[in-house]
Amino acid sequence: MTADPRFMDAALALAARGLGRVWPNPAVGCIIERDGVVLGRGRTADGGRPHAEAIALAQAGAAAQGATAYVTLEPCSHHGFTPPCADTLAAAGIARVVVAMHDPDIRVDGRGIAKLRAAGIEVIENVREAEARRLQAGFVMRQSDGRPIVTLKLAATLDGRIATASGESRWITGPAARAHVHATRACHDAVMVGAGTARADDPALNVRGFGEVPQPVRIVMGRNPVPGARLRGPGGPLWLLHKEGAAIKEPGATLLPCPVDATGHLDPRAALSILGARGLTRVYCEGGGRLAAALLGAGLVDRLDWYTAGAAIGAEGRPALAPLGLARLADAPRLRLEETRRLGDDLLHRWVAH
Amino acid sequence: MTADPRFMDAALALAARGLGRVWPNPAVGCIIERDGVVLGRGRTADGGRPHAEAIALAQAGAAAQGATAYVTLEPCSHHGFTPPCADTLAAAGIARVVVAMHDPDIRVDGRGIAKLRAAGIEVIENVREAEARRLQAGFVMRQSDGRPIVTLKLAATLDGRIATASGESRWITGPAARAHVHATRACHDAVMVGAGTARADDPALNVRGFGEVPQPVRIVMGRNPVPGARLRGPGGPLWLLHKEGAAIKEPGATLLPCPVDATGHLDPRAALSILGARGLTRVYCEGGGRLAAALLGAGLVDRLDWYTAGAAIGAEGRPALAPLGLARLADAPRLRLEETRRLGDDLLHRWVAH
Repeated sequence: MTADPRFMDAALALAARGLGRVWPNPAVGCIIERDGVVLGRGRTADGGRPHAEAIALAQAGAAAQGATAYVTLEPCSHHGFTPPCADTLAAAGIARVVVAMHDPDIRVDGRGIAKLRAAGIEVIENVREAEARRLQAGFVMRQSDGRPIVTLKLAATLDGRIATASGESRWITGPAARAHVHATRACHDAVMVGAGTARADDPALNVRGFGEVPQPVRIVMGRNPVPGARLRGPGGPLWLLHKEGAAIKEPGATLLPCPVDATGHLDPRAALSILGARGLTRVYCEGGGRLAAALLGAGLVDRLDWYTAGAAIGAEGRPALAPLGLARLADAPRLRLEETRRLGDDLLHRWVAH
Repeated sequence: MTADPRFMDAALALAARGLGRVWPNPAVGCIIERDGVVLGRGRTADGGRPHAEAIALAQAGAAAQGATAYVTLEPCSHHGFTPPCADTLAAAGIARVVVAMHDPDIRVDGRGIAKLRAAGIEVIENVREAEARRLQAGFVMRQSDGRPIVTLKLAATLDGRIATASGESRWITGPAARAHVHATRACHDAVMVGAGTARADDPALNVRGFGEVPQPVRIVMGRNPVPGARLRGPGGPLWLLHKEGAAIKEPGATLLPCPVDATGHLDPRAALSILGARGLTRVYCEGGGRLAAALLGAGLVDRLDWYTAGAAIGAEGRPALAPLGLARLADAPRLRLEETRRLGDDLLHRWVAH
């Protein structure tokens, strides 16, 4: 028998709903199907468990006997907070498992699939693998490089300005673009800004307009990241990533010391490693210009969401990006255009790392 | 009988091929049709004559008797260098004329249609009027405001930079975007740059890569517009729009004195009026940053073609736009997004005046 990739598409759509809610676990989707009928659906629950397979199997009940399971990531093989999903699938009498991609987690790494096959279950691999890898990019990056993926978001005028010379910046982009930013925050584990932006704009950095949803971790990064009143207010946990040895007293905040580079600024690569060690897989950075330039310059931007308003401020306006210190044009960081989207009066163009 | 708008679409496509080649005349297209068969096709010839109707009727010959003519602009009614097209259509025995839009030229202004009706010809008006008006925007602007329409073209990095701090700018955008610029030059009557760009970059401003084509007029605008060697070289005629009384000696160039504003810069509105009086209907401005800012700030940009490369240079790079001198964000010039297009590795986003 061959796998029907449409069921994997459905499992991937389910999985995507877990992005930003399941870290440090991967966002997995599972569909139990037999004779074209969906018997169970599940995704990794908020917080990371139960796993997708357990939820889908519970829905299917006894009907799972002899059915096919479509799973967006290789089922786990190790005992953690939950029993191994490979065992659970076998125990439920699943006859066939279709898997989109291998789990690079060193505790799994092929052992989940081996376990299924050892139990006499047919396994079909790499169905919709590219789509699954895109979805799992944060989880995979943390496994391979020990850091979360970074989405850099910038919203500027046509000429790349984020405020007038006098600092006026509300509003450059319109309500549709701003709502899109809130939806994008919701599918990241954390939202991050630099210390200058935290002081100047005092952004709340929480998800608004979508009802009661899990809030991302809010991170302020800088030598002396003093958050304003709105950042201290209700929302997800607040992490302050600061210069080693800096004396910051901020009730309720998690203080994360970070090494500085030769210029006295936080080393962005070290900072992301610290966030990866804390379990974050997807970080959404909303500027300011100095942090954005540091991340771009270090090749640490995996995706760039650039919102362009159909307006111009001119060269005296504040730039979206600080100096990059390039010696030659050939050294300029380059990204690849992924998609464009019209949002009200504004344009979103999304670029990804090569 | 009703008109078939598909024949008008064909006439509009023909007409568009005349853009940049027929000024000061409008770019008109004409299709002669009978029983669904196209008997003749014509567009305003390079240089402005013969007119589209005469060419299409000559193709159709005696078969035009009793046929329908689709014309993108009201046929002319006056004796100029060519006889009135309204008379020519009637003499050929055309039974019906479908017209996309009125000719705002005060010498026509409804009299062409009246003449056709007086000759017993059925006239159907305003078929594909919006499309025809878009095509004829330059001709109409010159009739109504005495100036050509202005397409401003800027090619920059994501952060709106056109060169590194040291002036390195080749190449920010790739070959597909550059080829698109040459094609866009070809459908404008003139290509214009500011004096600073003429000195610094010495652009040739001609159409390359499309074989033997009519070349646009090349214009340098500024108090002392001294063109470089490439601008003096082969290409269309060279016009220098300069400060009244400036002593510029440039063999072969047409010198056009222009009033200056309070800051000593050329008044961009006055400059465009001078170009309109010379017959230009479509001007393509390729910067630099000061001229672009002057045109945008004065509300004189009808279309903005912004080419964005997936690269960043940082705040020390040269800005695409000079200072605009805005007091408030509400004063920022605003444009409406018309379309986006991927060109190789680059993004073209096209904005139009509200």
